[in-house]
Amino acid sequence: MRGLFIGRFQPLHNGHTTIIEHALKEVDSVIVGIGSAESSYLPSDPFTAAERMEMLIKASVELGWTGRIVPVPIRDVNRYSIWVSHVESLCPKFDIVYSNNPLTVRLFRKAGYTVRSTPLQDRSRLSGVSIREMMLEGDDWRLLVPPSVAEVIDEVDGVGRLREITARGGAV
Amino acid sequence: MRGLFIGRFQPLHNGHTTIIEHALKEVDSVIVGIGSAESSYLPSDPFTAAERMEMLIKASVELGWTGRIVPVPIRDVNRYSIWVSHVESLCPKFDIVYSNNPLTVRLFRKAGYTVRSTPLQDRSRLSGVSIREMMLEGDDWRLLVPPSVAEVIDEVDGVGRLREITARGGAV
Amino acid sequence: MRGLFIGRFQPLHNGHTTIIEHALKEVDSVIVGIGSAESSYLPSDPFTAAERMEMLIKASVELGWTGRIVPVPIRDVNRYSIWVSHVESLCPKFDIVYSNNPLTVRLFRKAGYTVRSTPLQDRSRLSGVSIREMMLEGDDWRLLVPPSVAEVIDEVDGVGRLREITARGGAV
Amino acid sequence: MRGLFIGRFQPLHNGHTTIIEHALKEVDSVIVGIGSAESSYLPSDPFTAAERMEMLIKASVELGWTGRIVPVPIRDVNRYSIWVSHVESLCPKFDIVYSNNPLTVRLFRKAGYTVRSTPLQDRSRLSGVSIREMMLEGDDWRLLVPPSVAEVIDEVDGVGRLREITARGGAV
Amino acid sequence: MRGLFIGRFQPLHNGHTTIIEHALKEVDSVIVGIGSAESSYLPSDPFTAAERMEMLIKASVELGWTGRIVPVPIRDVNRYSIWVSHVESLCPKFDIVYSNNPLTVRLFRKAGYTVRSTPLQDRSRLSGVSIREMMLEGDDWRLLVPPSVAEVIDEVDGVGRLREITARGGAV
Amino acid sequence: MRGLFIGRFQPLHNGHTTIIEHALKEVDSVIVGIGSAESSYLPSDPFTAAERMEMLIKASVELGWTGRIVPVPIRDVNRYSIWVSHVESLCPKFDIVYSNNPLTVRLFRKAGYTVRSTPLQDRSRLSGVSIREMMLEGDDWRLLVPPSVAEVIDEVDGVGRLREITARGGAV
Repeated sequence: MRGLFIGRFQPLHNGHTTIIEHALKEVDSVIVGIGSAESSYLPSDPFTAAERMEMLIKASVELGWTGRIVPVPIRDVNRYSIWVSHVESLCPKFDIVYSNNPLTVRLFRKAGYTVRSTPLQDRSRLSGVSIREMMLEGDDWRLLVPPSVAEVIDEVDGVGRLREITARGGAV
Repeated sequence: MRGLFIGRFQPLHNGHTTIIEHALKEVDSVIVGIGSAESSYLPSDPFTAAERMEMLIKASVELGWTGRIVPVPIRDVNRYSIWVSHVESLCPKFDIVYSNNPLTVRLFRKAGYTVRSTPLQDRSRLSGVSIREMMLEGDDWRLLVPPSVAEVIDEVDGVGRLREITARGGAV
Repeated sequence: MRGLFIGRFQPLHNGHTTIIEHALKEVDSVIVGIGSAESSYLPSDPFTAAERMEMLIKASVELGWTGRIVPVPIRDVNRYSIWVSHVESLCPKFDIVYSNNPLTVRLFRKAGYTVRSTPLQDRSRLSGVSIREMMLEGDDWRLLVPPSVAEVIDEVDGVGRLREITARGGAV
Repeated sequence: MRGLFIGRFQPLHNGHTTIIEHALKEVDSVIVGIGSAESSYLPSDPFTAAERMEMLIKASVELGWTGRIVPVPIRDVNRYSIWVSHVESLCPKFDIVYSNNPLTVRLFRKAGYTVRSTPLQDRSRLSGVSIREMMLEGDDWRLLVPPSVAEVIDEVDGVGRLREITARGGAV
Repeated sequence: MRGLFIGRFQPLHNGHTTIIEHALKEVDSVIVGIGSAESSYLPSDPFTAAERMEMLIKASVELGWTGRIVPVPIRDVNRYSIWVSHVESLCPKFDIVYSNNPLTVRLFRKAGYTVRSTPLQDRSRLSGVSIREMMLEGDDWRLLVPPSVAEVIDEVDGVGRLREITARGGAV
Repeated sequence: MRGLFIGRFQPLHNGHTTIIEHALKEVDSVIVGIGSAESSYLPSDPFTAAERMEMLIKASVELGWTGRIVPVPIRDVNRYSIWVSHVESLCPKFDIVYSNNPLTVRLFRKAGYTVRSTPLQDRSRLSGVSIREMMLEGDDWRLLVPPSVAEVIDEVDGVGRLREITARGGAV
């Protein structure tokens, strides 16, 4: 049996890995959809799909998932009425969708999939938005992501990039 | 003579029907452009073009317009400089444009069309935004749309969908 | 019960009207999808969606279909894996799909629809490609389309346009 | 040697001309990229690429740049990861990029270009946003743009257009 | 008075320059639209818009047109029904369109423009297709383009590129 | 060290696996780009990206590549001038590109990559086009693909689909 879990992974953090490990107890493998794949260098989406895929590959080795997760970049189509078809056309077959997002739940249920909720977490800390905020503020975001992900971020000077992207000024 | 009236119809409400009935006194038939046709499942655009077309067909029977209105889905192009050409390429010929929107008025006048203003209405109640707000708040939005439209909305559980779309939480 | 019939209608001809009349004996109304809606001024697609919609409206009056057919322009998405979702998001609900095209049959069946084949016809004469050829050759294409459609074509100088489109030369 | 300077020019103002004149002291000619080329008739982007190109042509004559600047409309691709390639595919070769925008600086440096900062200016007055605000408020924006640009704006009734675009009301 | 002349300029050749010089006798300046601007590295479209703009700039100096032609890259929209609007949104105002292409003539006339035909030429030699063929065959294409254009082509190894593009094999 | 190998994999065949195995002798892992990812249900592109990814996953287990190849769907952008950037934004970092295609070789070399040619093969048999032809003709294509790939194709009735797609007739 295969699960599907879609996130934006800006960046991949411990909230995501908890969900993936939870799913890996129930299914043989997990298709990990990298959402908004073509967005990058934006305050809410600083990393490219390439970099997010790198995070997933490295974390996969670190956390012992090798061969059990399949990362798939999924670009936005901005038309929810075709969203499920779009995902199905890109991702290898899956049986169970993991999501707490009400719209995702509705759309995949309507298409006949089993949808399961994901473990609850402290979203005030464990969310992309709060981690990016910590990066900007100089707080210790490294505690909230797998060490291998921190490495990927450092290699591309992710914090510096995020600061430049959010900086105002210079435009005319 | 034919008129053109473009709206988003999220949902079709009594403000729209008043305008269409007003126009039908002046022209033989009205092309009803369904704007932002490819947007749906969004807080500001909960219904698909298919559902909005269904609303227009059912209301048309209820209100005795059969054979006198022509609904046409029109997707956004996000380039106002080609907007009039885009509309012309999709809608059967029309002579008079009904609109109070200053930009629409300017663009169609510039292209040589007669543009007429639509009857003034109480927009604090009769507008898509206020009706969607009433749906979320549990207020009685049904009084503001034709009964046949309320039926279409109920059939697709429109209020439930709108609540899910606007709900925060669950995303990672 | 509603049927769905999709064609390109370049132009609407007696082959199409036979199929629509056949379907109208079985269902209450027919959604008529105007395929490749955004193609026009091309040798294989000379008429705009607006003009093809006009043909359907006029023929509808001529043939007594008023209130029983619903024309819907459908633009190409060039991704067959999302084709059914795309059609569903634009067309009011339908129960039966009328088609002889093997791919259409497969895709709609896979999505759970009843698909019925359309009456066989002499495609060597009754097809868009042969009618456009007759227009170019000066043959009597008018016998193969409803009189109201011929009128629409003449109003926009359709034959002249087709000749210009197919003419070579002048480009640099 | 050639420079590249990209702006949105909504409208072209004295801040832009100062930068171009500064660059023309250092390089033989300046490629002037007209950003967001396909946006127009929006509160933040009132003018078409055609009109902005007209501003650059007229200002070029007025300020004696003829033959030394090359305006190039550049549409948004909304994918910063391909931004430099997109610009390179449209603009004649350039050696030095003039920009104070941190993201532009990073992307072009990463691609191997020399990037130079532009002269500092009083952005509270000399910026597109403040000039559009002055147009709406009836303040004297004419002092902040070259006289030839004011002429182009007046010819298309730019202030009237901007007011209509920003006006609320009339939409349904 | 301004003229408009649109070509693909793959590459710019003496047939094009004859037309531009002809137009410059009748109008003050010529907007030179670079068609299919985003196509490149294809057998029929080997050069980027950037390279074709370079050809026009260099030829402009060589042939003494400086300040009298305005090159504008125009990407395909593949919808002829909006073609004129698309061109108008990108090109500074023009009064007269120069073209022998029947569709271009029809579309711009319909939009109210004066259209003039261009001088007849020996298209069996002076056309993009025959010049690209000569490049592939090793024939002397240099006689058919301005010397400055040949230089631009040589700088980017245009003939080598064209051969690689048209080469079959190696793909799997 | 990582390699990159891009194919369309319609379907994955023994020619592809030979190249991947050749590359895996030289590098630690191979990024396998699935080209034309959004094309499917076409005579030249019968399989979806999802199905082609499934082929790669299953073949990977069969051939002992687990953990050493990373499949990445890459949609066409139809602009070769941004092709390398597009690939880089989707694929984890790579050092060596494996290709015999002259255009691919040129574009990646120009961008600074090491490009190596792939082992020569009998393309008259071992190519997607000849295998699809064999499927249509009823010849024994199964000998030319890994057994696990044949299974994936059979599960989706790939041969039946290909026949329907290539069948003419039924369209109007």
